Amino acid sequence: MLGELRTGERRPLARLLTRVEGGDPSVRALLPDLFAAGHGGHLVGITGPPGSGKSTLVSALIGEWRKRGRRVGVLAVDPSSPYTRGAILGDRIRMMEHAADRDVFMRSMASRGELGGLAATTWIAAAALDAAGFDPILIETVGAGQSEVEIARLAETTVVVEVPEMGDEVQAIKAGLLEVADIIAVNKGDRPGADRAARQLRAMLSTAGGRIERKPPPVLVTTATTAEGVPALVDAIEAHRSTARSPMRARERAASQVRRALADLAARHAEADPGWEASVQAVADRELDPFTAAERLLDAGRLE
Amino acid sequence: MLGELRTGERRPLARLLTRVEGGDPSVRALLPDLFAAGHGGHLVGITGPPGSGKSTLVSALIGEWRKRGRRVGVLAVDPSSPYTRGAILGDRIRMMEHAADRDVFMRSMASRGELGGLAATTWIAAAALDAAGFDPILIETVGAGQSEVEIARLAETTVVVEVPEMGDEVQAIKAGLLEVADIIAVNKGDRPGADRAARQLRAMLSTAGGRIERKPPPVLVTTATTAEGVPALVDAIEAHRSTARSPMRARERAASQVRRALADLAARHAEADPGWEASVQAVADRELDPFTAAERLLDAGRLE
Repeated sequence: MLGELRTGERRPLARLLTRVEGGDPSVRALLPDLFAAGHGGHLVGITGPPGSGKSTLVSALIGEWRKRGRRVGVLAVDPSSPYTRGAILGDRIRMMEHAADRDVFMRSMASRGELGGLAATTWIAAAALDAAGFDPILIETVGAGQSEVEIARLAETTVVVEVPEMGDEVQAIKAGLLEVADIIAVNKGDRPGADRAARQLRAMLSTAGGRIERKPPPVLVTTATTAEGVPALVDAIEAHRSTARSPMRARERAASQVRRALADLAARHAEADPGWEASVQAVADRELDPFTAAERLLDAGRLE
Repeated sequence: MLGELRTGERRPLARLLTRVEGGDPSVRALLPDLFAAGHGGHLVGITGPPGSGKSTLVSALIGEWRKRGRRVGVLAVDPSSPYTRGAILGDRIRMMEHAADRDVFMRSMASRGELGGLAATTWIAAAALDAAGFDPILIETVGAGQSEVEIARLAETTVVVEVPEMGDEVQAIKAGLLEVADIIAVNKGDRPGADRAARQLRAMLSTAGGRIERKPPPVLVTTATTAEGVPALVDAIEAHRSTARSPMRARERAASQVRRALADLAARHAEADPGWEASVQAVADRELDPFTAAERLLDAGRLE
């Protein structure tokens, strides 16, 4: 199975990802080997609000990395579950130019709707692409909420895509940027005010305070539709690779992964517990608080 | 302590919330009584993108509920952690008109930065406001990511605030709306196109498919700055109260609360385990996959 993956064939990889996404329990046994088979591909998160042109930018990034002879993997993560199939497919069409390239592998990952499911599934899928030798592996997410922060923590380098018209959202954007961005791309750079927006962002970030051990992230202007600025963005991403692999950052990332896996495991054990339904009902009836219910379920697991 | 809360005095409530937000472990012992002391206040989530005028709308909602003789609690949840203090304080200033009203209690909750911390903290804070007799209890969040979906699952009724200019983001908005919205407010209703945007949303939602057991959420136009449309929005929220308390929805909400508490507990136990640091290092060094690490930590807890 892992041998097949390493040949670089698409079919075994696609089959494995279907099992991962479907929550196939037999995937669990593969993980130690899958993880060990990694080639150390660069995990790059691409996030930003809807309408910022993320998908077009991802397509342009793929083009640039292909010019540089790299095999590129893309996971498009959709936190809003079954409903967005349409939106995701629409976005995917923009990437069709790479659909025939066997050194580009693209896949949409839908949310399972359950807490934690998506981050864990994405992480395993990224490990599979890594074992199959793709480098970089791009993880595209929509929005700027907690799930993006979480997925950004799993990625080694996170690019936040913004548009020139930030207006009065700038304070909120600033906060979100500082939390997750290693690099900021002001996309739709052919619109008026793009350079000015980039300068404002740079000025704002340089006086941000906050975590002083981090330099402010570089701000680049890109025009995804013409690929202008895209080579410079790829250079910036490549330059960030070594920073991302500092022992401290690697440990932070590992701790997030373990916490995420713990949450998934604890929920799975509890839901399989014979007391699960009664505990949930007692909480719904306000006879029990959720924390006491959780403690009892965790303790019940221990006594098995 | 709970007796003090029930007097409706602000100071004991403020002190308790400080302990909750600070992660004071002694809060744990209070939870069963806190939960049991609830008055069944209506938990209303208010979410939407930055710039949609959420805070001004919350202020207008407070005004309307006060006219109806209700005591209103507000938790403003900020997922982007220390950095947004400024933004949140700015928003709070708009609510100053209610600052002197002792039947309005407002509080900003910052993220603890850790997985799950925020949702759990918010839930406990809401339970405290409920024990203190506030009804409704508004939970205001920024954005439309996973954390908002999670917080929306804890709320009984979720209002999503949008602006008339949705443009090509409409597909993404649709997806997010269907996931969380019980009611949609198209705010800034005095801007051109507000009614048209509301009609488009209604048409889109009526053909959405998806979960057929749910009616499409009502779409209302509001102008928070003049309070136009706000009484109708309050009516819609009140009308949703009984739907929200159906046995099925109550169970779904309870299950989410228990899963969230399980994730928190499992992480806390694991981080206190003597093997935690070594496990995280092994994952960082790619000697161990996160799932195996999590299983071992969970098993180690069991053998204690």
